[in-house]
Amino acid sequence: MYISETILEVRYYETDLMGIVHHSNYVRYFECGRSKALKDLGLPIEKIEEEGIMMPVTHVECDYKLPVKMGEIIRIVSTIKDCPRARIIIDTVIYNQKNEVVCSGSVTLGFINSLSRKPTRAPESVVKVFSPYFM
Amino acid sequence: MYISETILEVRYYETDLMGIVHHSNYVRYFECGRSKALKDLGLPIEKIEEEGIMMPVTHVECDYKLPVKMGEIIRIVSTIKDCPRARIIIDTVIYNQKNEVVCSGSVTLGFINSLSRKPTRAPESVVKVFSPYFM
Amino acid sequence: MYISETILEVRYYETDLMGIVHHSNYVRYFECGRSKALKDLGLPIEKIEEEGIMMPVTHVECDYKLPVKMGEIIRIVSTIKDCPRARIIIDTVIYNQKNEVVCSGSVTLGFINSLSRKPTRAPESVVKVFSPYFM
Amino acid sequence: MYISETILEVRYYETDLMGIVHHSNYVRYFECGRSKALKDLGLPIEKIEEEGIMMPVTHVECDYKLPVKMGEIIRIVSTIKDCPRARIIIDTVIYNQKNEVVCSGSVTLGFINSLSRKPTRAPESVVKVFSPYFM
Repeated sequence: MYISETILEVRYYETDLMGIVHHSNYVRYFECGRSKALKDLGLPIEKIEEEGIMMPVTHVECDYKLPVKMGEIIRIVSTIKDCPRARIIIDTVIYNQKNEVVCSGSVTLGFINSLSRKPTRAPESVVKVFSPYFM
Repeated sequence: MYISETILEVRYYETDLMGIVHHSNYVRYFECGRSKALKDLGLPIEKIEEEGIMMPVTHVECDYKLPVKMGEIIRIVSTIKDCPRARIIIDTVIYNQKNEVVCSGSVTLGFINSLSRKPTRAPESVVKVFSPYFM
Repeated sequence: MYISETILEVRYYETDLMGIVHHSNYVRYFECGRSKALKDLGLPIEKIEEEGIMMPVTHVECDYKLPVKMGEIIRIVSTIKDCPRARIIIDTVIYNQKNEVVCSGSVTLGFINSLSRKPTRAPESVVKVFSPYFM
Repeated sequence: MYISETILEVRYYETDLMGIVHHSNYVRYFECGRSKALKDLGLPIEKIEEEGIMMPVTHVECDYKLPVKMGEIIRIVSTIKDCPRARIIIDTVIYNQKNEVVCSGSVTLGFINSLSRKPTRAPESVVKVFSPYFM
């Protein structure tokens, strides 16, 4: 299992006329969380893309529990429970400063070849980095 | 059952460095679809909010099937299968111009009182408008 | 001179906690306006990019006059006063349904070669399409 | 004169199909910069809004110099040269990690009463906090 944390401050433009963060932005926060997770592993997404691999999102789900306001600090916890093969699943929970869950969800990414745009398996470089966490 | 359709053109800024629409934008297209659905019913979201009711999203899920590019025309089909009571569920499918499904998903909205910010049931005005479709 | 109009409906997610459209979104509406302007000329931006030309924005300015709310219909008027050579300047004015100016501004685009990423002049295909409007 | 700095990492979803940050996002980075500037002064925007004052943007201008990519770290420098009275002007320059200017611009904010939505002068609480920097 691999777990990574990211801390972000909610931005003004991310709110909507209800005065709270628009629900679509949590999907973006999930991405910030997993970008950090990959970066912490020494495998930033830019590097994976340089190898000719893209990782499109194939599934997203998100349960919204509590509203979050402009200026709040959130903590994004990304958990990968299975070693990436044909896909990678990242469970994500976001907490507010009171340590309450504001939302939780899951994102699935596939691997595709940048040139052919065909599905492929996780490249060796990715599997190698992840495998120590799944022994 | 109530079904509504919306046609949109994909905007440049909605794409990402993969050259395709960023996955978070489909969650926003879903919103465009259901705003249109409510408007077609004579019940635009602004009117519901004027009655002191807000409809926060409590759950989103989305399966991504095909990429969509800048300038493509998409068709968003929003389907409501049950009369809104404590919540409203909108199943949404997005098609490209070849009539292929590019993504499908579901969004659940709750009802809350704007002042107390407490959950409430669908206001009479909403139920009244929807009920003819669920007889 | 070349003038083009686009009609858009303001989306929920484009608002912020002031209850009005966030100012950054007008910069995006300007883009929607000029995409339509190019499309109307038979020169959609995708086609220009296929020729190996990208048109990055080099300057933006915008004066905000009146707030716009969720659900309002806006009219974007894009005006090109000089035939594109090394750059293209698009003056843009956005009107609400009462025909009041909600904002006005100007965007300058350059031309760069997609491969070399070096500045270049407007490609012949672009100049040819524009020149009848500047005689 | 009052100067404030903010460090941000460019997010994946902020890029567009040119592979670089979409120009509209710099307008949002400017906002991140000035939110931090106000927060550093002990005057977060939430606090100003609680006093019944909103600060809508009345003018934005931005010159784009260099592209920025996903994952780059940017430094936003916000400078306020005149004590806020009827309006506040924030000059902003954004640097990349090589300390090159990627863009520079200016944002003007007005002050309006949240209830009446009429223009007003900077509230005493704001002037008081800024005045030591303009003696």
